[in-house]
Amino acid sequence: METLSRQQTAKSYDYASDPYRWDNVDGWRRYRVLRPFRGIYWDIRRRLPYYWSDWVDGLNYRTMVATIRITFVNLLPALAFQLDMRRNTEGFFGINEALFSSALAAVVFSLLSAQPLTVVGITGLISLFNYTVYDITKAQGMVDQYPQIIAWVAIWAAVTHWITAIFNLCDYMRYITDYSSEAFGMYVGIIYMIKGVEELVAQFYEDAGQITGGYLSIVIALCYWASVYALENIGKTKMFTPWVRKVLADFAYPIATVWWTGFSHIPGRITEANLMRIPRTRAFYPAVDRPGPGPWLIDFWNLEIAWIFISLPMGILLTLLFYYDHNVSSITAQAKQFPLTKPAGFHWDFFLLGCTCFAAGIIGVPLPNGLVPQAPVHTDSCTVYEEVVIDRKEKVGDSEENVVPTKVVRAVEVKEQRVSHFLMALAFCGLMTGPLLDVLHTMPRALFAGVFFMVGWASIEGNQMTSNLMYLFREHVFNQQADPRTRLSKRRILWHDLTRWFGVAASVAISQTIGAIGFPVIIIALIPLRWIILTRLFSVEELSTLDAPTANADIILASFGGQPERPEIVLAEKRQKNCNAGQESPKSIAGGFSGSGDDHTPGNTASTQERSDEQFGDRNPGQVMSKRSLVARGGGVASNEMLGHE
Amino acid sequence: METLSRQQTAKSYDYASDPYRWDNVDGWRRYRVLRPFRGIYWDIRRRLPYYWSDWVDGLNYRTMVATIRITFVNLLPALAFQLDMRRNTEGFFGINEALFSSALAAVVFSLLSAQPLTVVGITGLISLFNYTVYDITKAQGMVDQYPQIIAWVAIWAAVTHWITAIFNLCDYMRYITDYSSEAFGMYVGIIYMIKGVEELVAQFYEDAGQITGGYLSIVIALCYWASVYALENIGKTKMFTPWVRKVLADFAYPIATVWWTGFSHIPGRITEANLMRIPRTRAFYPAVDRPGPGPWLIDFWNLEIAWIFISLPMGILLTLLFYYDHNVSSITAQAKQFPLTKPAGFHWDFFLLGCTCFAAGIIGVPLPNGLVPQAPVHTDSCTVYEEVVIDRKEKVGDSEENVVPTKVVRAVEVKEQRVSHFLMALAFCGLMTGPLLDVLHTMPRALFAGVFFMVGWASIEGNQMTSNLMYLFREHVFNQQADPRTRLSKRRILWHDLTRWFGVAASVAISQTIGAIGFPVIIIALIPLRWIILTRLFSVEELSTLDAPTANADIILASFGGQPERPEIVLAEKRQKNCNAGQESPKSIAGGFSGSGDDHTPGNTASTQERSDEQFGDRNPGQVMSKRSLVARGGGVASNEMLGHE
Repeated sequence: METLSRQQTAKSYDYASDPYRWDNVDGWRRYRVLRPFRGIYWDIRRRLPYYWSDWVDGLNYRTMVATIRITFVNLLPALAFQLDMRRNTEGFFGINEALFSSALAAVVFSLLSAQPLTVVGITGLISLFNYTVYDITKAQGMVDQYPQIIAWVAIWAAVTHWITAIFNLCDYMRYITDYSSEAFGMYVGIIYMIKGVEELVAQFYEDAGQITGGYLSIVIALCYWASVYALENIGKTKMFTPWVRKVLADFAYPIATVWWTGFSHIPGRITEANLMRIPRTRAFYPAVDRPGPGPWLIDFWNLEIAWIFISLPMGILLTLLFYYDHNVSSITAQAKQFPLTKPAGFHWDFFLLGCTCFAAGIIGVPLPNGLVPQAPVHTDSCTVYEEVVIDRKEKVGDSEENVVPTKVVRAVEVKEQRVSHFLMALAFCGLMTGPLLDVLHTMPRALFAGVFFMVGWASIEGNQMTSNLMYLFREHVFNQQADPRTRLSKRRILWHDLTRWFGVAASVAISQTIGAIGFPVIIIALIPLRWIILTRLFSVEELSTLDAPTANADIILASFGGQPERPEIVLAEKRQKNCNAGQESPKSIAGGFSGSGDDHTPGNTASTQERSDEQFGDRNPGQVMSKRSLVARGGGVASNEMLGHE
Repeated sequence: METLSRQQTAKSYDYASDPYRWDNVDGWRRYRVLRPFRGIYWDIRRRLPYYWSDWVDGLNYRTMVATIRITFVNLLPALAFQLDMRRNTEGFFGINEALFSSALAAVVFSLLSAQPLTVVGITGLISLFNYTVYDITKAQGMVDQYPQIIAWVAIWAAVTHWITAIFNLCDYMRYITDYSSEAFGMYVGIIYMIKGVEELVAQFYEDAGQITGGYLSIVIALCYWASVYALENIGKTKMFTPWVRKVLADFAYPIATVWWTGFSHIPGRITEANLMRIPRTRAFYPAVDRPGPGPWLIDFWNLEIAWIFISLPMGILLTLLFYYDHNVSSITAQAKQFPLTKPAGFHWDFFLLGCTCFAAGIIGVPLPNGLVPQAPVHTDSCTVYEEVVIDRKEKVGDSEENVVPTKVVRAVEVKEQRVSHFLMALAFCGLMTGPLLDVLHTMPRALFAGVFFMVGWASIEGNQMTSNLMYLFREHVFNQQADPRTRLSKRRILWHDLTRWFGVAASVAISQTIGAIGFPVIIIALIPLRWIILTRLFSVEELSTLDAPTANADIILASFGGQPERPEIVLAEKRQKNCNAGQESPKSIAGGFSGSGDDHTPGNTASTQERSDEQFGDRNPGQVMSKRSLVARGGGVASNEMLGHE
């Protein structure tokens, strides 16, 4: 599908001949850390030729629509997270901090990043991180020094970001598979749902006697969630015309926000309920007065040396979080289902993220990073889709045939540009002015509980772990033969997923404690778990059915120095060699790979196959042949059984 | 489908040789009113042989499940309507009145009716009727005499019921088509949704300062609605096992009711909200003390003669309502999709309904009648379904074929019995005792708003008018060729449905005024509108596609004296005869009949065709041949165009 729609224009990037490789070099040159700046250098060289076109390609209707959509989809959660942070840091982070940070990130990344489609802003996780640090300083009696401490955490994070980028360490993102990235998505979804409930609970607690407003808030939050959900899903129906469907889906957030904000101001019993609204603040000034010079700058130099170093591990934890969070959001924003033609640049963007960390840190605003559920929404908004109606013939029994006209949606092209990102930056700057802050003040806080539910539920609903769970609960007779999971035993699928459900549960649990800043460690620990342990517990067929590399698009892999071989294949290769040297090549097992369930477009399978063939193409062509034949006679399964359970 | 599953047991009724016919008689015998008691007599003779089996067939698991389900599905709306009636009659009708009336109806109809599957109880329309009469008496300054007046209305209604039954007037129900019965369903659905909102609004108004409880009530009502809806729809999914699905769907109301009643008692902020609950009343006594002898009997003899006669037209309006409402509920409870074998008896049941009207009237409880959305639910609960998994082959494009295992649900048999109805009667009697009244008192009234939403929405969601509306809004390319509506112009469908939307809107509007008791007139006026006017405005093809007789099962038609010819056919026949006498038979157009949209089982088409062939079978067999051939060459359409628009 993608190959059909991808427009092979003259200016599209030729990733096959990308010089950023590590597999064609020998000696000390093979070691990434020994060749600093190589990733950054090639990221810039790769992307710079497209810089001018990034502006020209943005002058069209679709980009304007995408601007409005992404501004709302970024703004509303940012405000929601800010409310959460404000509550938990006793007012240190206010609404202006959130807007300033979002604006800063948007300006920097829209102008300078190699991947302008990846929108950068405030996530729920930085909120969690910031208030956990607050809790720690409070527990240590250092709450007065919180601004300086959080500034130093940011400074250390900036330094470790730069180190990561300079020494080409972003390359290791290519090892991330859906096993951990989907677990991360599930974790984020669950945290957001909890945040939504916390926001509603706060309506009951924060001032005395708010019980009435609390119940009305529940009504508004549920109705807002239902409205946005319904509007976004109208796009998938067959109602009205494609144009109407698209507009309603694109503007789901603005429509619902305006509607329910208006609703919350209906005089009478609704205004009597005294709903809590977004706090009104002074334009351009931080929420609380700061001791440093100027209104914003934190006097980070006024901190005792011991605490500067205590901030270091926290800074490293933050880098771990952003390393995972920011890069995964970039990967999903440039995933294979979008027919992108311009090259990616992860090293340079991570270096840039270090810069925004530093800047945001010393002016005391929450640190921005790539938005995990929203980044692909931006690319999606920039994508020109074509709806094709195909007559699907349904055979009921053997005789009757029913023609069902079915909608097939094809991505024709993506408006790859930095205009929408930049206009969003301007919008955020505008929102920091007095009049627009007053407009924000009219919004009831209940709306943001609805935003949490919407964003969180989207992350849970479309998750592979949910899909696998539904598969396991479904009555077996209804599973389609075409679903590769039917070739596995249900018990094995359950075991596979239980390992990461355990990781998600542990992360959610730790997030409720003062140890919350440690949650990135658990998520990142899933990568070696998958890479080392699971490879030994599950067969090649099981892993290739249930898992797939997250970074799967060529334009992404170019910046990572190519795709690594999967560990279960390497292991199988090694064992085969030991067992029966001289027989047919163990590589053959690789041919069995396929998509990972019914939620993923089956079209991917073919392309993945093609690429892996290409990759192996420069070796013995006979291997490719035997690869196919082994799978055809089912030998893969038999040998895998042996490998997986021995 | 039905013919496969219908078990042709020895005891099943042979409707073809039913002697209750009017088309094989001549002279004065043709006139229904001249042969009183004929319908009642044959109803009893037809059903009596099955009486013993009605008890024996009820001793099984399915009947027990059906008992629990129908008791809840009857009880909860009855309580909801009672709350509505109580509010609008300033307390005259209380909870005991509702239980007494339901119990009375259930005892009488389970023991004596010819159609024990038709559950009889309190509907929302009798609530509307009763409080409108209350408003009228209040406007006339006769509010003290309301008990006597409403008793006389019931007495007159009873008399007119008996007259209707004795003079075989129920036969005219066979003229009812989906045109009016679906409009009636839509009207009931809309009224119920309004009642749900009114119930919630009442939580804000009834006592001072109930705003908090009001908002909590909205939350509970919405969550209750969502729970019941989700549980009932689990049956349609492919999750779990058929057994689990069935149990969850069967017990949706009990599960959700227990859950949310429990929720409403959680100490803390929920109990602080002071939710309104079902009022606690004295066991076995009416809500207010009555002047007559004994606690219940109304002294209806103490009313001035003028008002006794003023009650007459109101009694007739009530009879009109019940004539339509009760008989339609019986028809839907015995519709063609249920493989029923025991014969129906409409005349006798309507006579019996007159008796319960009389009894309920003089003891001052709301008058029971057939429950429109619930009666088919009862039959459905008594039906043994079989799930068959069929491999549906989907052809995408020309080459690819995908096998999708699809669930086909077949009705195997119906436990046709009076045990569940009788046990429900006992349950209602039990609920009138002190301890169980206390249990009812624990239920928050918000639950009943949820019940209104659930029952009302079910009526709207599955309605043919909704389906047509969705069809009109759907993008045209997605309409299936198999849908007969694609052969009509969208504008004609719109005009057809607008006429009855107008009727529904008028009925809903009048229901909000003091003229509300007149609403049955509007609904019933749709029958002659369809029968006389629409026949002249729309072509035979249009009407046969968009409309179908509501009474379509043979066991029902036996009690109505057979199916009438459709008026558009009669008209076409007459005109054809005038235009081109001597040419092929105009009857031929009849062959073009088919189902009326995608919501109705296509299986009906074939059977209707078969039956109409049978009916014409004793005439010239050549006519049947030509009927088919005319349709085959599309002549029907051409001549209909001419007929429809001249």
